[in-house]
Amino acid sequence: MSEVLLKGQKAKAASLRFVGVTTEEKNQALLEIAEGLLAEKSLIIEENAKDLQAGKERGLSDGVLDRIMLNEKRIEDMSKAIKLLIELKDPIGDNLETIQKENGLLIKKNRVPIGVVGMIYEARPNVTVDAATLSLKTGNAVILRGSSSAYYSNRALVQTIHKALAKTSLPLDSVQLIEDTSRETAKELFTLNEYLDVLIPRGGKNLIDTVVRDSTVPVLETGAGNCHVFIDETAQYEMAERIVVNGKTQRPSVCNAIETVLIHEKWFPQFGTELLQALTNRGVEIYGDEQVVQTFGAAKQATEEDWATEYLALKVSVKVVQDVEEAIDHINTYGTNHSEAIVTEEVSNAKLFMMKVDAAAVYHNASTRFTDGFEFGYGAEIGISTQKLHARGPMGLEALTSSKYFIYGEGQVRE
Amino acid sequence: MSEVLLKGQKAKAASLRFVGVTTEEKNQALLEIAEGLLAEKSLIIEENAKDLQAGKERGLSDGVLDRIMLNEKRIEDMSKAIKLLIELKDPIGDNLETIQKENGLLIKKNRVPIGVVGMIYEARPNVTVDAATLSLKTGNAVILRGSSSAYYSNRALVQTIHKALAKTSLPLDSVQLIEDTSRETAKELFTLNEYLDVLIPRGGKNLIDTVVRDSTVPVLETGAGNCHVFIDETAQYEMAERIVVNGKTQRPSVCNAIETVLIHEKWFPQFGTELLQALTNRGVEIYGDEQVVQTFGAAKQATEEDWATEYLALKVSVKVVQDVEEAIDHINTYGTNHSEAIVTEEVSNAKLFMMKVDAAAVYHNASTRFTDGFEFGYGAEIGISTQKLHARGPMGLEALTSSKYFIYGEGQVRE
Repeated sequence: MSEVLLKGQKAKAASLRFVGVTTEEKNQALLEIAEGLLAEKSLIIEENAKDLQAGKERGLSDGVLDRIMLNEKRIEDMSKAIKLLIELKDPIGDNLETIQKENGLLIKKNRVPIGVVGMIYEARPNVTVDAATLSLKTGNAVILRGSSSAYYSNRALVQTIHKALAKTSLPLDSVQLIEDTSRETAKELFTLNEYLDVLIPRGGKNLIDTVVRDSTVPVLETGAGNCHVFIDETAQYEMAERIVVNGKTQRPSVCNAIETVLIHEKWFPQFGTELLQALTNRGVEIYGDEQVVQTFGAAKQATEEDWATEYLALKVSVKVVQDVEEAIDHINTYGTNHSEAIVTEEVSNAKLFMMKVDAAAVYHNASTRFTDGFEFGYGAEIGISTQKLHARGPMGLEALTSSKYFIYGEGQVRE
Repeated sequence: MSEVLLKGQKAKAASLRFVGVTTEEKNQALLEIAEGLLAEKSLIIEENAKDLQAGKERGLSDGVLDRIMLNEKRIEDMSKAIKLLIELKDPIGDNLETIQKENGLLIKKNRVPIGVVGMIYEARPNVTVDAATLSLKTGNAVILRGSSSAYYSNRALVQTIHKALAKTSLPLDSVQLIEDTSRETAKELFTLNEYLDVLIPRGGKNLIDTVVRDSTVPVLETGAGNCHVFIDETAQYEMAERIVVNGKTQRPSVCNAIETVLIHEKWFPQFGTELLQALTNRGVEIYGDEQVVQTFGAAKQATEEDWATEYLALKVSVKVVQDVEEAIDHINTYGTNHSEAIVTEEVSNAKLFMMKVDAAAVYHNASTRFTDGFEFGYGAEIGISTQKLHARGPMGLEALTSSKYFIYGEGQVRE
């Protein structure tokens, strides 16, 4: 039997044993893990060093090596995050709906764990701990398939988790690490429908596209963010600049950063140069349409490809548009349904924009950078969904739950 | 451009125009359709006759021909169902969550349409009208891909719908019928991710399995029902018989009918023969385990395959089990996560069974036949989901909706 199949079966069995485990038992297990991470800090760092060494030999970039790297501070942060997770309300068992039928049947729809969650991810070993602890909090078993570049780190982290679980009533098998990181094991997970209830890819566009294309297991897609800000005719200059600069420069490498600024043609002549200068002053390269290039010397000509590009860098594309309708059309053509903002004093335009733009989160007079589980107050985040089924936008614990109907009768049958 | 691609683009464009359409406008369109169906009755029946004729020539079974057949009564029933749909509450715009942040940001999570719904289905032309009207009620555009055996009927029904829509403010393109019913068009729909937000297969196991396996568009799976009743040691005989007979014989061809009866070994000696006789008296064939076969002469020996079979006929498999735990294990091994019942006077066993059995609906002392959108009071049903993401169990209008975050600020940016 293959490793994936065997661990799939074990995870499924663990998930069935998981039913009825109390919030206290789950929190106790999380506490053991939080403390275990601190206790095993030096072992984890030692194992992590092997990954870093191997990565250097393979010529991985400094950026990737930094994502793999674990130090005392990072391990302590993981441990702290788990302690915050313990404080979060357990969503399992929540009553979502109660139906009392005339024939006496009582129907209750309650929140239950999904069952077995599969996680396929790249470099970052902290995803191992995140995915395991969020799954445990929501009563799910989890199968982790990390990347070869974090092989030793992931193994050490899961060993630490198992050691902690051994001190509790929770099944060890509820956290399974696939150690074989060849392509074959990823492919096997894609079709492990019998044992896997959902598959969540975390990583770059290629990984996500592959999982969406090849997986027959339902996927929770956490996608790219080609986010826009539209500055309407009536936008206050100072607010527009603040929102654009924050969206572009506060953390350019993340999915809720902005990639294109759309500017109303009546606003542009008065304020365009000042806004673009503010961006240039912060090291942002401008790719503009014809009017932008003519007006602002430092701007390069944007190509069709620019409108569709998620730069994730200090670059921005800028286009002058006729009105809010053209802005909406542009966004619905090139956007990735993530986060979109309008800056305007005209409430009717804000309303139109927010209704018609097809995205998980739409903003009036605020930065797109707020699309985040922690900023929304969920206390945890599995990712930001850009699909429309099950969960859309920042996913908290509830995204890792399903529901179940409990029906109580006294012998009722259907007529 | 292929028909699927063209109609996909049109549906997408229609879905974007659909945003902001009021409940009144949608209900007006539904009323026009309900009346249009009555007005076009003879045309529809004429076109349906062509399908029936072609079906006979192709040697389709009487059962399939009956599913294709439309008569005055059936068209009137469709029209009535639409009038009931008009009365249902429009879920679009419902506020699901409101978050007021300390920085002044107001975050509202509201219900919105999914966008474009794809429906792939077999024989029954009434699915054409169901899918179109449920989609319109929830503000979605829909792409319909019926089967060649209902080609003329589906075309006539969609023409009627278009004629009705032409009298309203709703875009005609919001209902698209793929007229080419070759395999190629189904395959094209499977990967039409750019224009299609969800794909719902309605039909037999083969169709559903193919869609789940080959579609990269997210699928709402409405699956098979290998449903069980477990009769516990303390079950009242009369109640147990009523629930088993109802579950098996009231409508054997549907997914919430029962296929296996599990009987506690201490209940079986006293009541087993009487129960099995009650089933046999109603024409039910019994496939039993060894003990059942030894006790009840009319029973045939069940094979391993029987436990996994959804008979959808007057057949039932029967197994004697040691206790509730063995019943739970059997169900979690052979069941399809649909509807499962326990008959018992022991509340703790009911609780254990309902918690541990992994199914969309679990019953204590009631018939599994109640798993149904209308019985649950949803007033409409898109299908019964046996998957765990997005929707589980009977799916009403809400299953055709997504959510969207609306964030209102006064210039807030992220620190």
